[in-house]
Amino acid sequence: MAVEAAVAFAKDNGARFIEELKALLRIPSVSTDPQHTGQVRQAAEFVAAELRRIGLESVGLIETSTETRTGHPLVYAEWLKLPGKPTVLCYGHYDVQPAEPLEEWVSPPFAPEVRNGNLYARGAVDDKGQMWMHVKALEALFVAGGGKLPVNVKVLIEGEEEVGGEGIAAYVRAHADRLRADVALISDTDLFAPDLPTLCVGMRGMIYTEIEVRGARTDLHSGMYGGAAPNPFMALAHLLAKLKDEDGTILIPGIYDRVAKPSDAEVQAWQTLPFDEAAYLAGQVGATELVGEPGYTVLERVWVRPTLEVHGMPGGFIGAGAKTVIPAKAMAKVSLRLVPEMTPEDTFQKLKLYIEEITPKGCTAEVRMIHSGEAFVVSTDNPFIGAATEAMRRVFGKETVFVRGGGSIPIIGDFIRVLAMPALIMGFGLPDDNLHAPNEKFNLSNFHRGIESIVRWMALVGA
Amino acid sequence: MAVEAAVAFAKDNGARFIEELKALLRIPSVSTDPQHTGQVRQAAEFVAAELRRIGLESVGLIETSTETRTGHPLVYAEWLKLPGKPTVLCYGHYDVQPAEPLEEWVSPPFAPEVRNGNLYARGAVDDKGQMWMHVKALEALFVAGGGKLPVNVKVLIEGEEEVGGEGIAAYVRAHADRLRADVALISDTDLFAPDLPTLCVGMRGMIYTEIEVRGARTDLHSGMYGGAAPNPFMALAHLLAKLKDEDGTILIPGIYDRVAKPSDAEVQAWQTLPFDEAAYLAGQVGATELVGEPGYTVLERVWVRPTLEVHGMPGGFIGAGAKTVIPAKAMAKVSLRLVPEMTPEDTFQKLKLYIEEITPKGCTAEVRMIHSGEAFVVSTDNPFIGAATEAMRRVFGKETVFVRGGGSIPIIGDFIRVLAMPALIMGFGLPDDNLHAPNEKFNLSNFHRGIESIVRWMALVGA
Repeated sequence: MAVEAAVAFAKDNGARFIEELKALLRIPSVSTDPQHTGQVRQAAEFVAAELRRIGLESVGLIETSTETRTGHPLVYAEWLKLPGKPTVLCYGHYDVQPAEPLEEWVSPPFAPEVRNGNLYARGAVDDKGQMWMHVKALEALFVAGGGKLPVNVKVLIEGEEEVGGEGIAAYVRAHADRLRADVALISDTDLFAPDLPTLCVGMRGMIYTEIEVRGARTDLHSGMYGGAAPNPFMALAHLLAKLKDEDGTILIPGIYDRVAKPSDAEVQAWQTLPFDEAAYLAGQVGATELVGEPGYTVLERVWVRPTLEVHGMPGGFIGAGAKTVIPAKAMAKVSLRLVPEMTPEDTFQKLKLYIEEITPKGCTAEVRMIHSGEAFVVSTDNPFIGAATEAMRRVFGKETVFVRGGGSIPIIGDFIRVLAMPALIMGFGLPDDNLHAPNEKFNLSNFHRGIESIVRWMALVGA
Repeated sequence: MAVEAAVAFAKDNGARFIEELKALLRIPSVSTDPQHTGQVRQAAEFVAAELRRIGLESVGLIETSTETRTGHPLVYAEWLKLPGKPTVLCYGHYDVQPAEPLEEWVSPPFAPEVRNGNLYARGAVDDKGQMWMHVKALEALFVAGGGKLPVNVKVLIEGEEEVGGEGIAAYVRAHADRLRADVALISDTDLFAPDLPTLCVGMRGMIYTEIEVRGARTDLHSGMYGGAAPNPFMALAHLLAKLKDEDGTILIPGIYDRVAKPSDAEVQAWQTLPFDEAAYLAGQVGATELVGEPGYTVLERVWVRPTLEVHGMPGGFIGAGAKTVIPAKAMAKVSLRLVPEMTPEDTFQKLKLYIEEITPKGCTAEVRMIHSGEAFVVSTDNPFIGAATEAMRRVFGKETVFVRGGGSIPIIGDFIRVLAMPALIMGFGLPDDNLHAPNEKFNLSNFHRGIESIVRWMALVGA
């Protein structure tokens, strides 16, 4: 059987796969930082070269750009030689989050290192490592199939997932015919628990905004003006405190109006998941206690309830020591995570109107949208999901659980809505993999199980 | 008359005085930044060399250090050859505030430039330019007096005024006998209005603190954890909003208990000052409106009422673009300005206790004192004040007004309390000189009038 040969090839070549991945992880493809533009492209070329080497065709970089910025390229490849068989669109991203704060990394973020069966590096699991599972599964299937795959494949890998993915979104809209397939495969999520096969069937959307508050025309001396001149940071504090209360309820009028509730059956199934709130608090969060909207479980709060978060507050004096300045302006980077039926446009409008209403006197406020993405849920009622649970049963020896994701992969919504196909969101990270944080890692046994799961799934889909 | 000869000498040499001052302003003696340590010392040596050249004795640098840090040196000089005559302690500082934000300067902060009769540079008025008036007045008096001054003089110039002045405070306490004099002359303040001779008879004190809030153990992905993990910036926003309300009333329990009210006579005199609130708002502040504690005039709010200000909020993601992180920690740089009878220790204790009480759940908060200084008022009932009003009447042709200062010069409190002498706070800046802000300037006619005023005052004191 070709599928068992492919699995065996992947096992025999596992150590090489990891060395190749390390080489990719050494490229600091930080998409948000213009200083890394060249390295982002280098990562794209690295991936394209490997896709070409293993046997894909029409491999190339696709340039992207929007009205506001020059984008990072997409990597495209295809193998479409089985008329009548299903076509899979494999999606991943080769860009990574910034690595700061650097001083908290045990080993440097772009010097990948294996410790205790985990590969540590920025991008290890999000998403270079998981994208590499796709590439290596395809390689194994090509070798075992004597240069043939069991299904038709299109590969689309982007370099702007961490900065909003505007380029791929525009490309998908403009080239729907070229990209159309029967199912999209996305591996950029986690197993719910170690050894528990998991499919993600819905994710939150988001709007990421900058709220800038201006007070005096120029920075002022806090001795001379303190008590009479407006302080934009203090104004921003009052404003933020009015956006979300201390219990975690968002106070923007109408914000919960469109929130779609999950079905009772889905909520009940979540109650059977192996979720230990005390372990989650101690092991993953590490705060004195959890917070959040009253009346909802932790999983509901992070999966199907909107949230509002502050990511940083640029402006003013942030150096060592003391500077007695009343800054002329202050900013807060604020995002809202959206759940199904909320839309980015409607949410942004409500935020903007409310901020106009609550801006403290003496100050003016401006709200800018940096990027956005829609929330989505996918149906579990299709053969691709069935094949995935079967494939993972063989690899893990367990039944698959269905979960939601609290994060946002905006392009999945576009695949579902624009390309009119189901999405199979089959990721192999772990909840403590430190995504977007120092010491990001990928458990290597999950890397190998991910490759085997994809191999078996494609074989089943093409059977 | 030697005094008229000294005034004439200062006029004849005014252009040279400005060139010398420019050379001093070119030295970026930013005391808060460890990278500038060498340049801070260079400024001290520049000043010491000039004091030596003009005829002062025992000129030298005095090293300072405290338990927590190595300090910047004091410059000391003296001329004590008139037994029976009063001794004046001339105080100033040669260190400056950081120059950021650099992009808002019309000409670079350390490349002094004269435009429209103003000298623009960081430190132009605060305090290198005003300290240089002392030095040049002494030079003029030495020359006109054939190597003799009309009074005994001690000069003490510090390099840490902008970082709390711990070094000079410790030195004053340890060497009170060496420094004792009959009056301290300080020029580090403003004229109340252009052409209006002004003496400052009281200043606010301050505590400068850092409030650090910690939530999760490490930075977290806002998608995966948003809604369940504490957000330290959001917690800090709630905390700051509870420290001061939107009207400008400080909410720390007991904070107003010790506030001493100014006399009715003093408050009435302030009502006759040429203060135009609309012009202050439009010309100096440039915000949409003024803010502050209800029930008090603007001058009362900035002179005799405490205030609480946020200077910056380090931590989190402050780069361009978007990073979807829930930061593990957030900080606010917060100061309180104190008025007479409030003490730094008591105020800090009240702040600390209150923050413990209001720290939002899921987070811990730590408050650190960075530096502090006492508020003070000085009596106007002494011959040195009388001589100053007489000197300035001759220079400006007007009666002197008595004002308070909203800023803090902590060492003046020590001169009054530790050295048991009155302080003459005679400054020649203007309210729109952009202290601690971009485009700091010093009006050059005030520089020259300042020198003449000091020359005439010293002559009267020694008469």
